Amino acid sequence: MSFQSDTTAPAHPALLEALVRANDGAAASYGNDTVSTRVKAQLREIFSTDLELVFTVSGTASNALALAVLAPGDTAILCHDEAHIHRDERGAPEFFTGGAKLVPLHGEHARMAPETLEAALAEWPSDFVHTTPPSTLSLSNLTESGTTYDVATVKALANLAKARGMHVHMDGARFANALAHLKCDPADITWRAGVDVLSLGATKGGALAAEAVILFPSVMDRFQTLRARQKRAGHMVPKARYVAAQFEAWLENGRWLELAGHANAMASELAGGFTSIPGAKLLHPVEGNEVFIDLPQEAVDALNAANAGFYPWPHGGYRFVTSWQTKAEDVARVVKAARG
Amino acid sequence: MSFQSDTTAPAHPALLEALVRANDGAAASYGNDTVSTRVKAQLREIFSTDLELVFTVSGTASNALALAVLAPGDTAILCHDEAHIHRDERGAPEFFTGGAKLVPLHGEHARMAPETLEAALAEWPSDFVHTTPPSTLSLSNLTESGTTYDVATVKALANLAKARGMHVHMDGARFANALAHLKCDPADITWRAGVDVLSLGATKGGALAAEAVILFPSVMDRFQTLRARQKRAGHMVPKARYVAAQFEAWLENGRWLELAGHANAMASELAGGFTSIPGAKLLHPVEGNEVFIDLPQEAVDALNAANAGFYPWPHGGYRFVTSWQTKAEDVARVVKAARG
Amino acid sequence: MSFQSDTTAPAHPALLEALVRANDGAAASYGNDTVSTRVKAQLREIFSTDLELVFTVSGTASNALALAVLAPGDTAILCHDEAHIHRDERGAPEFFTGGAKLVPLHGEHARMAPETLEAALAEWPSDFVHTTPPSTLSLSNLTESGTTYDVATVKALANLAKARGMHVHMDGARFANALAHLKCDPADITWRAGVDVLSLGATKGGALAAEAVILFPSVMDRFQTLRARQKRAGHMVPKARYVAAQFEAWLENGRWLELAGHANAMASELAGGFTSIPGAKLLHPVEGNEVFIDLPQEAVDALNAANAGFYPWPHGGYRFVTSWQTKAEDVARVVKAARG
Amino acid sequence: MSFQSDTTAPAHPALLEALVRANDGAAASYGNDTVSTRVKAQLREIFSTDLELVFTVSGTASNALALAVLAPGDTAILCHDEAHIHRDERGAPEFFTGGAKLVPLHGEHARMAPETLEAALAEWPSDFVHTTPPSTLSLSNLTESGTTYDVATVKALANLAKARGMHVHMDGARFANALAHLKCDPADITWRAGVDVLSLGATKGGALAAEAVILFPSVMDRFQTLRARQKRAGHMVPKARYVAAQFEAWLENGRWLELAGHANAMASELAGGFTSIPGAKLLHPVEGNEVFIDLPQEAVDALNAANAGFYPWPHGGYRFVTSWQTKAEDVARVVKAARG
Repeated sequence: MSFQSDTTAPAHPALLEALVRANDGAAASYGNDTVSTRVKAQLREIFSTDLELVFTVSGTASNALALAVLAPGDTAILCHDEAHIHRDERGAPEFFTGGAKLVPLHGEHARMAPETLEAALAEWPSDFVHTTPPSTLSLSNLTESGTTYDVATVKALANLAKARGMHVHMDGARFANALAHLKCDPADITWRAGVDVLSLGATKGGALAAEAVILFPSVMDRFQTLRARQKRAGHMVPKARYVAAQFEAWLENGRWLELAGHANAMASELAGGFTSIPGAKLLHPVEGNEVFIDLPQEAVDALNAANAGFYPWPHGGYRFVTSWQTKAEDVARVVKAARG
Repeated sequence: MSFQSDTTAPAHPALLEALVRANDGAAASYGNDTVSTRVKAQLREIFSTDLELVFTVSGTASNALALAVLAPGDTAILCHDEAHIHRDERGAPEFFTGGAKLVPLHGEHARMAPETLEAALAEWPSDFVHTTPPSTLSLSNLTESGTTYDVATVKALANLAKARGMHVHMDGARFANALAHLKCDPADITWRAGVDVLSLGATKGGALAAEAVILFPSVMDRFQTLRARQKRAGHMVPKARYVAAQFEAWLENGRWLELAGHANAMASELAGGFTSIPGAKLLHPVEGNEVFIDLPQEAVDALNAANAGFYPWPHGGYRFVTSWQTKAEDVARVVKAARG
Repeated sequence: MSFQSDTTAPAHPALLEALVRANDGAAASYGNDTVSTRVKAQLREIFSTDLELVFTVSGTASNALALAVLAPGDTAILCHDEAHIHRDERGAPEFFTGGAKLVPLHGEHARMAPETLEAALAEWPSDFVHTTPPSTLSLSNLTESGTTYDVATVKALANLAKARGMHVHMDGARFANALAHLKCDPADITWRAGVDVLSLGATKGGALAAEAVILFPSVMDRFQTLRARQKRAGHMVPKARYVAAQFEAWLENGRWLELAGHANAMASELAGGFTSIPGAKLLHPVEGNEVFIDLPQEAVDALNAANAGFYPWPHGGYRFVTSWQTKAEDVARVVKAARG
Repeated sequence: MSFQSDTTAPAHPALLEALVRANDGAAASYGNDTVSTRVKAQLREIFSTDLELVFTVSGTASNALALAVLAPGDTAILCHDEAHIHRDERGAPEFFTGGAKLVPLHGEHARMAPETLEAALAEWPSDFVHTTPPSTLSLSNLTESGTTYDVATVKALANLAKARGMHVHMDGARFANALAHLKCDPADITWRAGVDVLSLGATKGGALAAEAVILFPSVMDRFQTLRARQKRAGHMVPKARYVAAQFEAWLENGRWLELAGHANAMASELAGGFTSIPGAKLLHPVEGNEVFIDLPQEAVDALNAANAGFYPWPHGGYRFVTSWQTKAEDVARVVKAARG
């Protein structure tokens, strides 16, 4: 009954098998292998566009590399004040960009409202040498509160950014969960809505360690820069085929969305079960695989007594995360435990 | 017949099996899992000392993190002018340290002579505010020419560095090959000789992607700094158990030295075969799993015709690298091909 | 009638004369001259303590060097969201520190309340490897709204920071104006209250270009680091005697406080005159040499017609800055002009 | 009898007077004043071209800003191994560029030979992601051994660099001395020969603190970047008119070349006098205002006894520097002293 994080889950068997299959004979290093080529083709089909990508082994690396390609060191990155890039990456974006400034914006349920962005843009001019000009907007989808940005909101935010000559990054550590909830076309919520670079995470979705930085056509000419930065950051893994193999198995036949859909369903069920507890209060809409909820102390005690794994959350309440591996009976058991 | 690099080889079956075994149920993230703990115990036994470590997935990352912990940005790192950190890491050491200066020193067979180090130290004072003071000595063992530093030379070099208050880093991307050749105690050629931090590579030795940065007691108090930098660089892989599992299988029962010994033997055999070709000339002593050799054009043509994989080397001649997977018959075949 | 900034004012004659006097024969470079030594003695007396210092030629440089000495790159600097270091230095603190994160806190009249700091400290833990830990508190005195922090408030804020092992920086670009208003002992509002490093600005107070970074005893052991960073940033002016000479003349016989007191008085008078205009509204208490005021459009038009120099302010209203050189008749004229 | 450095000399009276004259009334800050505009016009005439520039107060700052505009952090700067940027700036170029690698090349009399550059370019490819690609060639004129590069050599070196898509920087801390020796057109040895950016120093030539970074037309489109970096580095002095005033007086009516010519003549005279001492040996041709010479111990003792200021030089011998202020009788006295 581990609901601490989707990173405590093991890898999905299909991905592990793919990795074992990849272990066959010599293969070109540094991403020049045939599996890597096939993954690129898969992603081009999924996103209905040409694109470029590099692999990494952590979401922090993906985000930081993405931002390094978009945000020069003397510019600002606008993001939600709960954003992973601001709160949970030990300053990796600042490190990789050479000191770009993260300007944190507030918004309910970890979502930035277009008016908030507009006000911030008014405060941070682009052409005053003394002030750090905004170069990049970064949105998380899923957000850090387990909610989604829908296509219209991404478009509205991206348009504001584009009107100022900025680029748009999407932190998609749980992009599959967002897609599974929104049931929209991957292209519609990314490059067609104005997203230039996507950090696409498979680790939380069933991989051992597999993340990608995807450059859409608007910034594909920065691919050599991205490769150089990937190398310079020690993220150009020599035997890249093993990362590629995970992605291939994850993406094939819609497995990524299927696994995410399952995790989301488990979260909904968990939320449903918990909210029936008197005194429990859902803190954010459940639109992915995370449940943020305020629970009465007895419920918390009961859960701890039952050895259920979950975290108290900095701003109050508790977080429960489901994964591809969460079973309906786990959910039933944890709900039962909470009810005492 | 791939002799391009030990990174084109697949992973050793024992390591892959260990990885598959690790895929069992939930496990704490970020290095707090039980496999990681066991690897630490293994390394403490192997090196006969307490130590701290973090895992990474590339040699470049290991070296850059190691140097970041030792060399403040306004200091200099002394290394051989062929050093991987200087020539092959796209400036990762400069990036991770915040701009430390690599001072390249010359020396035959990619080995730095103590007199050369002494002369360089005389040129770079420690206490003159205008000059970049040397803080760190970095030695590769195996060197970039496939040669080794023996215990006495490491000691001599480290002593010169220590007398100036500097720290010593060893790039051990092929440390197992050096050990297998020197047949010395791992402790004797590292911390007992004055090495503070070792980048220990398993990838070239049979892993999928497994490297470690090892802090010996002299700098163990910098472990939290190392962890912070690992995180900030995106190298704190969430599901660390999979990296740990590779290390555990690699280190257990001396497998790492056995595999390295085999690769070394194959290189010796290859060198022996090649040097019998009229006009062939070994460029460096073969003390590990790399052969640098000048070959007559006909031999090169014949090798290419036979689809043998190998690289011409920047300073002349050709490089052939063997691995845990190289078979005696591969060597026989490539030698036969070269002979025409 | 220039009220744009105290940096548009010329230098005070006494400082210029001192500079001319310093132009006599050879002098040791890089701060080893006798005038520099005398300034250090002056400051030790003024602050009733031992201290170390370096000179720079801009407030941005002083702040950035001060922060570089206090805040490692993977830590956070807490400051007001209007702070000059956050809003007006093009990311110099991020650059000099190697990517430290500025965490902006809100507060009326550009003053941070102790409760606000307390809440922020609760949000940013010190010992969680994923989160950027706060290392430094930076306070501006004068603040960016022309208000002061009194001794008790500095103490209260510094105590909260110290309890978390943080250091405290004071941006004193207009420190003399704050002192002239508060009429407190310079020691009481700096090191005795918990300030470790003071950026002391003379440029706005009558110098051509003279700023200092002052290390109080708590961090005096970082002086060599400060010197190294000063050099590395190109701020170790070769002929330092000319900067020192300005400081000497500025500090001698209380001239710095006298000039600041005059500027403050002019600002009070200006504020008094303006507030008598119907519809005018003072936006912040006038506790230094800056007046932030909302003016009716007719008054603004009249001022522009009279060629009065002043700036509209980003958050609404207008800013008028007085200087050592502002004359009572300038104030009278501008007030008269505004009244129409 | 101070021959330690041209930075121990005072400022020339004409420059000081100009500075005093500039202290008149209010003036726009940050380089928007009228004196700054006039200096730009002077330089355009002197260099027979359009150009852009910013002022700084140290040669280290000028060089580092120039390099920051030319060399991205993951590229290499090729320079002589005695170059000030490599040996005497505490890693400022690494700091300002975000970690660019300085590749030091050897050459007699601190001059890099075209063949040496050619060989280095062969070693450092432009298109291999693992290797740091060269982006910038930096030449000092005067060199660090007091010699000059003539127009033909600058052209030859710049052509090699341009053929690789690199930019060319000239460190002209003593550019006036080089010009006074070469008697060539300033345009011919800079932009017409392929120099993109010039660090032009006036401090050693008679200013208090006045340096400029000059962008020639080939890179003038980087002016906003230069301004942003100047600000971010704390080098945008608020009251810029005082730096501009020094430049104006220095450049007007050829004063800069006249003063440099005098300093050069004094160095020649000094060299002539010293070489008549038995056992004395000139180490480098005297082509500017610096004399590097090996002296017999008795001569050194005699000079010390006479309180002559000069430095022993790291690679052997002694350095004597003359300045605009050195008098023929000073030279006569020091030569006499050395003769014993």
